[in-house]
Amino acid sequence: MGGGTVSPLAPGRFPPLPPVAGARFAALAAGIRYRGRPDLALMAFEPGTGVAGVFTRSRTAGHPVLWCRRILPAGRARALLVNAGNANVFRGAEGDAAVAAEAEAVAAALGCAPEEVFVASTGLIGERLPVERITARVPELVAGLRADGLASVAPAIMTTDTFPKGAVARCTIGGVAVTVAGVAKGSGMIAPDMATMLAFLVTDARLPAPILQALLEPAVARSFNSITVDGDTSTSDTVLLFATGRADHPAPVGPEDPSLAAFRAALGEVTRDLACQIVRDGEGAQKFVTIRIAGAVDEGSARRIGLAIANSPLVKTAIAGADANWGRIVMAVGKAGEPVDPARLSIAFGGREVARDGRAVPDLDEAPVAAHLRGREVEIAVTVGDGPGAATVWTCDLTHGYIDINASYRS
Amino acid sequence: MGGGTVSPLAPGRFPPLPPVAGARFAALAAGIRYRGRPDLALMAFEPGTGVAGVFTRSRTAGHPVLWCRRILPAGRARALLVNAGNANVFRGAEGDAAVAAEAEAVAAALGCAPEEVFVASTGLIGERLPVERITARVPELVAGLRADGLASVAPAIMTTDTFPKGAVARCTIGGVAVTVAGVAKGSGMIAPDMATMLAFLVTDARLPAPILQALLEPAVARSFNSITVDGDTSTSDTVLLFATGRADHPAPVGPEDPSLAAFRAALGEVTRDLACQIVRDGEGAQKFVTIRIAGAVDEGSARRIGLAIANSPLVKTAIAGADANWGRIVMAVGKAGEPVDPARLSIAFGGREVARDGRAVPDLDEAPVAAHLRGREVEIAVTVGDGPGAATVWTCDLTHGYIDINASYRS
Repeated sequence: MGGGTVSPLAPGRFPPLPPVAGARFAALAAGIRYRGRPDLALMAFEPGTGVAGVFTRSRTAGHPVLWCRRILPAGRARALLVNAGNANVFRGAEGDAAVAAEAEAVAAALGCAPEEVFVASTGLIGERLPVERITARVPELVAGLRADGLASVAPAIMTTDTFPKGAVARCTIGGVAVTVAGVAKGSGMIAPDMATMLAFLVTDARLPAPILQALLEPAVARSFNSITVDGDTSTSDTVLLFATGRADHPAPVGPEDPSLAAFRAALGEVTRDLACQIVRDGEGAQKFVTIRIAGAVDEGSARRIGLAIANSPLVKTAIAGADANWGRIVMAVGKAGEPVDPARLSIAFGGREVARDGRAVPDLDEAPVAAHLRGREVEIAVTVGDGPGAATVWTCDLTHGYIDINASYRS
Repeated sequence: MGGGTVSPLAPGRFPPLPPVAGARFAALAAGIRYRGRPDLALMAFEPGTGVAGVFTRSRTAGHPVLWCRRILPAGRARALLVNAGNANVFRGAEGDAAVAAEAEAVAAALGCAPEEVFVASTGLIGERLPVERITARVPELVAGLRADGLASVAPAIMTTDTFPKGAVARCTIGGVAVTVAGVAKGSGMIAPDMATMLAFLVTDARLPAPILQALLEPAVARSFNSITVDGDTSTSDTVLLFATGRADHPAPVGPEDPSLAAFRAALGEVTRDLACQIVRDGEGAQKFVTIRIAGAVDEGSARRIGLAIANSPLVKTAIAGADANWGRIVMAVGKAGEPVDPARLSIAFGGREVARDGRAVPDLDEAPVAAHLRGREVEIAVTVGDGPGAATVWTCDLTHGYIDINASYRS
């Protein structure tokens, strides 16, 4: 746990999360690692629920991720079981057996197949998951399932997070009202120990798994894969989107169906909102930084350039020091290895250009730039050429607080 | 400048650097940015000197790098002019003109072609290089050239470095004694502002440029490209190897000629020594960390895995906190994206295994591991499979000192 001090960048309040037809939720304190706080949550879905997922690209992915990857292709979900405090990673056959035991316990209680039960874990790597403490509480979780319980899941999945994270958006598909709601956790991007990024989204839209997957992937690229706190990648990162199908809208013919435009926007809004909340809870963060890249050869190239800037310790420490050190941005653009045109490179802080067309702005008045950088919200805009590629990434500054949190012993 | 406190990891002394036949050296204080310290140096070589070079891969490389890349293919060098305090980067046509003026001034004074004059600059990015302060002092530099002056170059190229860096090794080629000596600078790897990595090596070996280049590239891969302080890449990184040809040894037929084995080893020793000195001067470094990777598919893959570990802020902060947090190493191995066998993954600190064959060592006595991590010199060994690929990388811990140095204003 983060020591009790809430990030200065936290939103003012946790948003009211409405029920999503076909889904129920429960959480409780199972004592997996923490004492006196919820650390185990269950989401249960009615039959017919479709699912899409995006997982860590780590070559040492955790046992729950391996399980979810295996069952995802069937596209069906009846439940998600998630715990905090132990990531169940790097435990060999024992770790796989623990996941299977969790899925079987939930399947028995809900009357479904284990392969319809998704599992996620976040917390310490390499320690044995006390799976018996989890399976013993599954009947209690099932008995406590509530339609209005999504908000209770958010605190149960926190590790070093200093505040729970939730978001909701409403839209229509073919004139029928649809809800997209979700919770997330993460505070180091994406720290292995206690700060894996998890996000679970629920909608009542009636969308088959292939369409869900096609909608989820670009949304994740523009949200959870466009943020960074420290550039580290967890073994356990998991984003899952469950669609209960209770909304009675016409069936779209495919992911590009025009009737899905508003749903795509709503999904984008919820994922971006949750992703930015993760950055706002970045370990030690004092400033929230938005980096907009334009003029790249394509969106992917723009995102890679943006992440190179966002991951640079030198850029992040300069921002912590409110230093308009655009030379470090030039460096980071260069190290990204993407096609750029140095003669067209322009950089602005808070809307004020400090470099234009490949060189410093002459006789720059640095005072307004410095004033912008002293604030909590920093905006950096970088043009790298005249291509059509643009992307936005989000990060935070690198401060003494990050060192304090991460240089301490695990115990 | 680093504020006057020498790194606690600094070597005990600057090594005596012997003369290298055919080369002379000079340095002076030109007031480019600093006051009261040398910041401009010249190396001059007799006709017939060959040259090899390796440069930054940055897409926003500085004007001196662009110049050096252009003249390197001819393989001939008569001089190197280098300054500290201003990197001459991101200045458009003005930056290129400044380099040309420097080369022309040296060429006029030495009676050679400008295209035989290499140029390097390190310091702030984006500010105009006061080239007239450099060119005005070239005659004085030439008048001050001394055969025993190599040591005077090391302090003249420092920026945030806290100690000057030099190294020497002796060997034979075909029974004839040969010297390889060099100086380097760098303290953030490879920080853009004030901490570019520069290394200049001189030998009296008689080796044509293609052989020199073939020898230099693997030596750089195993030294300067196997270190990291913060993972950032400078716009100005430059390694140059000058061979005066004054040693009267038989001509090797190519880079694989057996007569070059000792020279290859000596070059490896000098480059590794200088590279490790750069790590020992890492901004804020309190611990020197050696990471050995074995069992990878090949050497390059092993090096990329090692650098992923060495660049992880979470690993580096754990080391700063003397925490045997091997879960973060599992994470970093995973994020490298290289082929690994999680079931064969083993991790040792200071020769003591903490994880073996894909899981934690049971009932580990952490006391000796913790004692090792509390020392100045930390060794991490990671086996990632049963392949033949091995590599060693070097880094330092990430401390509050790094934040202090880099979050401060430029002024």
